[in-house]
Amino acid sequence: MPLEIERKFLVDTRKWNPTAEGTRLVQAYLSIDPNPTVRIRIAGEKAFVTIKGRSETISRPEYEYQIPVDEAQEMMLLAISNPVEKIRYEIMHENFLWEIDVFSGKNDGLVIAELELESENQTFPRPDWLLTEVSGDRRYYNSFLSEHPFQEWKD
Amino acid sequence: MPLEIERKFLVDTRKWNPTAEGTRLVQAYLSIDPNPTVRIRIAGEKAFVTIKGRSETISRPEYEYQIPVDEAQEMMLLAISNPVEKIRYEIMHENFLWEIDVFSGKNDGLVIAELELESENQTFPRPDWLLTEVSGDRRYYNSFLSEHPFQEWKD
Repeated sequence: MPLEIERKFLVDTRKWNPTAEGTRLVQAYLSIDPNPTVRIRIAGEKAFVTIKGRSETISRPEYEYQIPVDEAQEMMLLAISNPVEKIRYEIMHENFLWEIDVFSGKNDGLVIAELELESENQTFPRPDWLLTEVSGDRRYYNSFLSEHPFQEWKD
Repeated sequence: MPLEIERKFLVDTRKWNPTAEGTRLVQAYLSIDPNPTVRIRIAGEKAFVTIKGRSETISRPEYEYQIPVDEAQEMMLLAISNPVEKIRYEIMHENFLWEIDVFSGKNDGLVIAELELESENQTFPRPDWLLTEVSGDRRYYNSFLSEHPFQEWKD
């Protein structure tokens, strides 16, 4: 079973800024937690349907299939909540590939770094632009953000 | 947008019986109506993920992608309700291709004939084994049957 093992952190944008070009991602959800998550994503010139199981700790089963972009655009109309928009940057830090998502639209202001790991207890060097870890915090799931955009949060 | 236009009928099994071999279908749902329907189906040696929009009258948008059978088997574990099992027979009647589903397991006793049409008002010759039309009756959605099996119905 393909497992996604992932750690997520907030990013200190005083210490990190994009240096290369990113990929624009637009994604919408047909089903969300506590049901299996079914996501339609358009990533630049490609599109995918992704199915994820319920998350347990920092791992969850994940299945992804490439689909035609025009069909993805049509299926976005079936979504149960707002699409989430962000630019994704891939940053290599001491041989670990980080994905940094700079959200826009209703989630403007949110910047999240994700690191995919081989095992749950794998260690990694911490870049100095990492802030709090938010792995497993449901508020930072993109599916949650599609229903409760960051700009509407009241802390 | 790919539209599924379909009419469904109960079948009089005193007048119809399988004459050729059918295909065993097992299908489970990751999301169901009123959300978009996300179905995992194993059909003999093949497997598919299928996404259907909300139904309006007898038409609904439908997107289907072939996926590996082993991944489909794993994803069935993520389903939100019981899998639906049936044998599907393809029957040609006066140049119209009917799909007749003979359900088993918890839906044993239910036999449904489906006809896919080019347009909502297309006419077709009625085989003598057709009983009541159930197009648009949500109780006969396979997704409904996965949650409320036919054998548990009380009429």
